[in-house]
Amino acid sequence: MNDTMRASVLIEKGRIELETVPVPQVDRDQVLVEIAAVGVCGSDVHYFHEGRIGDFVVTAPMILGHEASGTIVAVGSEVSPDRIGERVAIEPQRACRVCEQCKHGRYNLCPFIEFYATPPIDGAFAQFQAIQADYAFPIPHSMSLEAAALCEPLSVGIWSNQKAGTGPGSRILITGAGPIGIVIAQVAKAFGATEIIVSDLAAERRAVALRFGATRVIDPLAEDVGTLGLEVDAFIDASGAAPAVRSGILAVKPAGRIVLVGMGADDVSLPVSRIQGRELILTGVFRYANTWPLAIELASSGRVDLDSLVTGRFGLSDVEGALAAAGNPATLKAIVEPGK
Amino acid sequence: MNDTMRASVLIEKGRIELETVPVPQVDRDQVLVEIAAVGVCGSDVHYFHEGRIGDFVVTAPMILGHEASGTIVAVGSEVSPDRIGERVAIEPQRACRVCEQCKHGRYNLCPFIEFYATPPIDGAFAQFQAIQADYAFPIPHSMSLEAAALCEPLSVGIWSNQKAGTGPGSRILITGAGPIGIVIAQVAKAFGATEIIVSDLAAERRAVALRFGATRVIDPLAEDVGTLGLEVDAFIDASGAAPAVRSGILAVKPAGRIVLVGMGADDVSLPVSRIQGRELILTGVFRYANTWPLAIELASSGRVDLDSLVTGRFGLSDVEGALAAAGNPATLKAIVEPGK
Amino acid sequence: MNDTMRASVLIEKGRIELETVPVPQVDRDQVLVEIAAVGVCGSDVHYFHEGRIGDFVVTAPMILGHEASGTIVAVGSEVSPDRIGERVAIEPQRACRVCEQCKHGRYNLCPFIEFYATPPIDGAFAQFQAIQADYAFPIPHSMSLEAAALCEPLSVGIWSNQKAGTGPGSRILITGAGPIGIVIAQVAKAFGATEIIVSDLAAERRAVALRFGATRVIDPLAEDVGTLGLEVDAFIDASGAAPAVRSGILAVKPAGRIVLVGMGADDVSLPVSRIQGRELILTGVFRYANTWPLAIELASSGRVDLDSLVTGRFGLSDVEGALAAAGNPATLKAIVEPGK
Amino acid sequence: MNDTMRASVLIEKGRIELETVPVPQVDRDQVLVEIAAVGVCGSDVHYFHEGRIGDFVVTAPMILGHEASGTIVAVGSEVSPDRIGERVAIEPQRACRVCEQCKHGRYNLCPFIEFYATPPIDGAFAQFQAIQADYAFPIPHSMSLEAAALCEPLSVGIWSNQKAGTGPGSRILITGAGPIGIVIAQVAKAFGATEIIVSDLAAERRAVALRFGATRVIDPLAEDVGTLGLEVDAFIDASGAAPAVRSGILAVKPAGRIVLVGMGADDVSLPVSRIQGRELILTGVFRYANTWPLAIELASSGRVDLDSLVTGRFGLSDVEGALAAAGNPATLKAIVEPGK
Repeated sequence: MNDTMRASVLIEKGRIELETVPVPQVDRDQVLVEIAAVGVCGSDVHYFHEGRIGDFVVTAPMILGHEASGTIVAVGSEVSPDRIGERVAIEPQRACRVCEQCKHGRYNLCPFIEFYATPPIDGAFAQFQAIQADYAFPIPHSMSLEAAALCEPLSVGIWSNQKAGTGPGSRILITGAGPIGIVIAQVAKAFGATEIIVSDLAAERRAVALRFGATRVIDPLAEDVGTLGLEVDAFIDASGAAPAVRSGILAVKPAGRIVLVGMGADDVSLPVSRIQGRELILTGVFRYANTWPLAIELASSGRVDLDSLVTGRFGLSDVEGALAAAGNPATLKAIVEPGK
Repeated sequence: MNDTMRASVLIEKGRIELETVPVPQVDRDQVLVEIAAVGVCGSDVHYFHEGRIGDFVVTAPMILGHEASGTIVAVGSEVSPDRIGERVAIEPQRACRVCEQCKHGRYNLCPFIEFYATPPIDGAFAQFQAIQADYAFPIPHSMSLEAAALCEPLSVGIWSNQKAGTGPGSRILITGAGPIGIVIAQVAKAFGATEIIVSDLAAERRAVALRFGATRVIDPLAEDVGTLGLEVDAFIDASGAAPAVRSGILAVKPAGRIVLVGMGADDVSLPVSRIQGRELILTGVFRYANTWPLAIELASSGRVDLDSLVTGRFGLSDVEGALAAAGNPATLKAIVEPGK
Repeated sequence: MNDTMRASVLIEKGRIELETVPVPQVDRDQVLVEIAAVGVCGSDVHYFHEGRIGDFVVTAPMILGHEASGTIVAVGSEVSPDRIGERVAIEPQRACRVCEQCKHGRYNLCPFIEFYATPPIDGAFAQFQAIQADYAFPIPHSMSLEAAALCEPLSVGIWSNQKAGTGPGSRILITGAGPIGIVIAQVAKAFGATEIIVSDLAAERRAVALRFGATRVIDPLAEDVGTLGLEVDAFIDASGAAPAVRSGILAVKPAGRIVLVGMGADDVSLPVSRIQGRELILTGVFRYANTWPLAIELASSGRVDLDSLVTGRFGLSDVEGALAAAGNPATLKAIVEPGK
Repeated sequence: MNDTMRASVLIEKGRIELETVPVPQVDRDQVLVEIAAVGVCGSDVHYFHEGRIGDFVVTAPMILGHEASGTIVAVGSEVSPDRIGERVAIEPQRACRVCEQCKHGRYNLCPFIEFYATPPIDGAFAQFQAIQADYAFPIPHSMSLEAAALCEPLSVGIWSNQKAGTGPGSRILITGAGPIGIVIAQVAKAFGATEIIVSDLAAERRAVALRFGATRVIDPLAEDVGTLGLEVDAFIDASGAAPAVRSGILAVKPAGRIVLVGMGADDVSLPVSRIQGRELILTGVFRYANTWPLAIELASSGRVDLDSLVTGRFGLSDVEGALAAAGNPATLKAIVEPGK
């Protein structure tokens, strides 16, 4: 195997170049994956344009991309060589495994966590990337490598619905019908929700939502979800928009739940007296924990449709094109295929 | 028994008068209690001065007071006459028992609930008041009727700590050291919390907190609880003050809980990105459910000290004095004793 | 309306007669239902043949039947007359609503509960029966009255799966493929379970299980579920057979759950060291609480198929025939139709 | 430092000898602890006399002892040398950290776990022993090294009470007043239980229980705990005796919990119809997870008294004497002090 590979490197804010870089070293508990597909996430677009997300600042060249899949081509000393050749979905994080959060099963909250494409950790817009062996999940033959890559956003959908307590018969409100909102709706349906109400400003996105499980769509400019008497069991925001969050909270029935997924302003004015008077439970999600096995199960059994989310494919030399596409509201998922 | 009784009636905003009114009718499932003691709550003071709390408006004369105890003097047709003579603590609410919330055990969220001293339901600043038999809890001989009355604020403390998940070894932050904050601190200690950090602007209230279980007090003008690295398991706000809520949230460790007890502005700007990034769980309390048995247990066993909270006693003819006292920061609990 | 009606009365063990009896009185909070369909349960058969189930002994003539539906024809004083004409599924129990269990939302464990066809409470093998208004659940037009009656066994399936923690991706083992086992399997599928392994001695029952959601069936005479390495998330016994219970427990993975639904011997020898070594969680079900809304949702949306469970219909004059049919292993559900 | 140390080695069933053996190698993530105190557990006695516990068989010389404390004298390459000199309580297990159980926070159920003094892993009856750095918990100066060693049985008490749901106001039944039963009672008290009923055949053990938190003791030969109407919230068996388990289950109120801690026969006949009819929840404990921080908190704050449990001290050359003492009912805790 060569020591070097091609990678799409974010040199600095607004500048991405295809470079030849060393193939990542494989630690004793890692596998090396030849990357097949990488979904483009809004955070990739944001890092490209802004050079930062909150406190995470790109100060040195870095490889973006964290929704990845591929084939194992090498293994560390403690990993069985039998795994070489496995097609895998990658959970793109590495927790310390010894802190209080890790030992309680909440490893996504590990203060020492490393995450693909979060400075200074490289992501997967490259020919190869390494990952801990237990975070590379084998997928069945029936599942495409694109779907495997999209187990990452699917995990956000699973985690959000688990926090929301979605189950058989649930009535769920989702604000925001971008790629994440669509995945959340699909998971809500797979979890048995019977009413899945999706709100979005864009008519085309509302139409997409109806294709992917929404039982009703709302145009927030025409109707206020907070005053329709929806009385949903749970509200999941995938917009990050303060007005959506505020209205959504008013739609939740007593003892219901609110899960904030979309990233928006650091501070948002919330109807606290309503949260108190109805004893609503509000939380947020930070990535996910232990979701890949279920993600693979949902995707491979057809209960969630990931392949249909792909609206464009790009080579490693055109990551900039992929990022531009991802910024287009008509795009659901742009995929980078390093081997293309 | 007479058909009439004396009661302190809120005629309109700012005007309370001692009147002779009919003794309440006792429904088949109720008991009639000769009221012994009634704690004065901030909500009583608020109704007196403002004539309303949020959507609840005093539009007709009403009797205030909902922290009550006394002795059963009559029973409805379905209640055993053996209960006459029982000294009881009153849980001052009446749920419908048939709605979804009631049947799931969350009767405090019953949309049809009636609550003492919430318009148009009369409270207990009177010689007698009726209550459902199962909401009149017998107390042991060792327990005073004043302590029995204060099982109501104690229930707020229990419910808050239950929502906060307070348990052995917990580290709890409480903002606001008024009567409710003090009770919350006492309950936190009784539940096994080992660090109970109480913040209040008033030095005398901080001193009181130290007497009632706080292990550390903070002057928010001198120190910002949000930047001290407290990393508490849970934060309970008993102040209703937006800056306290905001700072308190920043003091909570990942996966920790936030319980908003104090009533303040309807809308409050909250650090949503922190709630997301740490997956904090935020909720509020609306009264309580199923807390009286534990309240009586905690109070009668001495693990919570209610008697020492009483800082003044007033007769039925001086409810106005009691309300004035309750508005004084040096007061912990003013008690109205209708039989005095 | 007449004061009398026809009813099928269990006079004594082994003797059922069609009699003319008074129409039940309707309490202020009740509705009177003209019974349309009543499923026959194993407990009806047992009372008929044995005159008792455990401590419940038939000492006076009693009407059997507790899986019932019909149309409201009269209402009590506190119930809206608008409900007359509603097609309803009946939850056949009446809890006290004031005890500790009721007020915590576990009303099925109310020590004062009354239940249809459990001595001395009459059931529904009659033209009419009364029920509390909030236990008569309106059904949509799309749903048959037979399916409405079978919301009762469906509730057992829901409650069992809720106790088992069945959810998306779950692997569930069910022993016993009688009517209850079949309903449990259907609910497991509706709740998202991906492996539903059903064991039964009878080949025809195993075949039925495959039609209703089982992904694999096992003949316990040919294979021992305890040694196949199934490592299921949960095991639900619907057989009441001690060997099935024992083997099933050995099939559960660490931290998994065991739910005992089938009634068998009072005492059963269990592999306690396995329960300890894997920290398994074992419980049982006693009827159900708060399941009807979801039952109606699952049945009316087609995610659970109740109509296909009906294998025979009988008039009120042939309850004995219905009971005989229910005792036949080839029968899934015999239905008594009082209006036929 | 020397390469060799003295250790008390179980050569074969019934034969222990003081030998000179190599000091354990320290892995990169481990610390080496100079052992100060080791409590003797019933399992040590069992291995000594029987050479096995269930499927765990002593097939080669092995060092016993797993309730240990000491001082860090060396560290692995990834551990800060600052930790040398720390007084620590040892959690004597090593989980794989990558399996499903570990990643969900239930590392005690890890199928690959290694545990001190469970074949073929050596324990702590030796001058030194190694442990993962995060399983060596620093203790405050106020805490003795004997108490630190006894954080191990205390952890059993914590874990049992956590499984039992013990909290403020709980009513708990404990059968068996040996060392573990006594610790369970102490923890129940520290968790806020108000009734702690302890049953034991031996009058002297019942007397000890009263000293350590029991509010009532029962002689099972004189009274049957199952028929006294105790209606406890939870029952914890620390006896392993089938009659105690059976009677205890009958003492639990509806929806209550049963936790089986004592090891007895593999199979036990249980009153399954009672478990069903009351929807009791039965489970067992297998060691513990994440209990040391709370154990140290409870012990160092004086809410649990570990030092008073020590009834005898033995040198490394007299482990056989310690094992004999541990087998004596009058002994609470025999301690081996390797440095003595």
